[in-house]
Amino acid sequence: MRNLITDVRGIVVGNAEDTAAATGVTVALFERPSIASVAVLGGAPGTRDTALLEPGMSVEHIDAVVLSGGSAWGLGAADGAMGWLAREGRGFPVGGYRVPIVPQAILFDLANGGDKPWARGEGEAPHRHLASVAAAGAAAEFALGSAGAGFGATTQNLKGGLGSASIRAATGQVVGALVAVNAVGTATIGDGPHFWAAPYEHGLEFGGRGWPTAMSPQDLALRFKGGPGANTTIALVATDAVLTKAQARRMALAAHDGLARALRPVHAPLDGDVVFAVATGHSGAPSDAFALTELCASAADVLARAVARAVYSATALPFPGAKPAWRDRFGG
Amino acid sequence: MRNLITDVRGIVVGNAEDTAAATGVTVALFERPSIASVAVLGGAPGTRDTALLEPGMSVEHIDAVVLSGGSAWGLGAADGAMGWLAREGRGFPVGGYRVPIVPQAILFDLANGGDKPWARGEGEAPHRHLASVAAAGAAAEFALGSAGAGFGATTQNLKGGLGSASIRAATGQVVGALVAVNAVGTATIGDGPHFWAAPYEHGLEFGGRGWPTAMSPQDLALRFKGGPGANTTIALVATDAVLTKAQARRMALAAHDGLARALRPVHAPLDGDVVFAVATGHSGAPSDAFALTELCASAADVLARAVARAVYSATALPFPGAKPAWRDRFGG
Repeated sequence: MRNLITDVRGIVVGNAEDTAAATGVTVALFERPSIASVAVLGGAPGTRDTALLEPGMSVEHIDAVVLSGGSAWGLGAADGAMGWLAREGRGFPVGGYRVPIVPQAILFDLANGGDKPWARGEGEAPHRHLASVAAAGAAAEFALGSAGAGFGATTQNLKGGLGSASIRAATGQVVGALVAVNAVGTATIGDGPHFWAAPYEHGLEFGGRGWPTAMSPQDLALRFKGGPGANTTIALVATDAVLTKAQARRMALAAHDGLARALRPVHAPLDGDVVFAVATGHSGAPSDAFALTELCASAADVLARAVARAVYSATALPFPGAKPAWRDRFGG
Repeated sequence: MRNLITDVRGIVVGNAEDTAAATGVTVALFERPSIASVAVLGGAPGTRDTALLEPGMSVEHIDAVVLSGGSAWGLGAADGAMGWLAREGRGFPVGGYRVPIVPQAILFDLANGGDKPWARGEGEAPHRHLASVAAAGAAAEFALGSAGAGFGATTQNLKGGLGSASIRAATGQVVGALVAVNAVGTATIGDGPHFWAAPYEHGLEFGGRGWPTAMSPQDLALRFKGGPGANTTIALVATDAVLTKAQARRMALAAHDGLARALRPVHAPLDGDVVFAVATGHSGAPSDAFALTELCASAADVLARAVARAVYSATALPFPGAKPAWRDRFGG
């Protein structure tokens, strides 16, 4: 187990970044078309092809999920992943053509210090190209922290980033999470090194600092980053189980509990928090509602851990006034 | 401040119970018709008049919210509250009639040891009558623990119950929560006295036990109560702020984060978790998206605290094999 979403059989992940612009793209490719759904709980989402993920809609299988920076400017990224997939002969076949199904969500990283000339009307946003590069490089190993869609991401107090984690659920099936953390709030408690996700940590995967010995009311005071709309945490949870689309929807909803436990605040009017859920179907179906609940609760756990790992792994952007990284503040 | 949802100006609450059947009803009455919405995130909900609470629907104001035991048998309870309201001359006026708008959610308490003859086809369910009694007795003070809709409620390891809490948000507005806790999971960590909601506790409102000094992986092992469908946590959060219906919807969604932080697991396929949100409009509107986020995050906090207070305040049912109360296990 790599403690990455790629521990779920049938998934590879690739990152690509534009360092001058301080933005990037992460692509999760599914070896075979996979059952998927989504839950959009934030108040300011930016998405593409999420409507088809409702359980009542006809398309049930998707080829990839794209997480991207760029705010709405990043919504072209899925084009790049679709192009790469079509060149590989993948995607839904129709009349001699291929239509790869690639839902996407974006986060806002425009105001992080990187130069975004296209958002001033100069040239084109890089995300389509970045997604093509990310898809071509997708593999079982990929970088966390300031990488891919998390490259330009921030939280209220610290650099955000890309996180991932996995677990073998009590049912024997594998569940993994991939997340780009750009929350309006914080992943850490007060001014200290402790992560809200501490109760769920495996080993030292995000520093092993545990829970603070004491908390003050001030630790619960809300702190907000930037302006309205300048936020958002976007994620993918995945399992190797066989799920129906409705079960995938339930897993996506339950996984949001992991965001609730790892970030404060979250699901704000200012966040566009989105979680996709995918079932690659390499292991069996959950035997009953309890087994499905195990998978759902595991999705929440791995997503909480992935959020903390994102912030724990990040490095600061090289711009004046950039948010410090967790490691800059609290060591290795 | 009573640390109850009735600290929100314009709200009174009443309880009524059928002790032999071990079920009950809680009614929250709004002094004047109030803006409301709802978020249904559990997989097995039982509700009444929730469709009209969608932001796009025409009815914007409601007169009361009913939380009830009885599973689907309890869905007649709102009739009792409507009847009481009509006798008081309240409700939406139309053609010389009154139509009180009373959305409702239920929880499953059939298998808690109390005798439910109506569910064997003998006689009628008591919830309509109980709601009428609860409405007539609604006041600023009301009982927590094994009372009202929480009378017959349980969690996986301990007696559930009715909880409430309030806070004055950083914006100056009051936010309160009312909840009947009947989760498939637990409100406490492992086998100990510590509540998952501990980080959010005010004073000694649920015992002041704080966070455990150490956690074991076993503390995260999921434990499930009863059979599928035998669960559900139902809640109302309220503020004295002026909100739009869409903002109330956002508050209801955000308040679910309080359930995520206070219960493990929650939002399961086996839970019908529902949160209503109401704005009585006695104070001002949130000044911006940050102020709305403060209200939303406060709703999550008070709901987490209310969940712990429900379990902390409960007393065991007098039946063989009944779940122990927190106080039976861990003292006063």
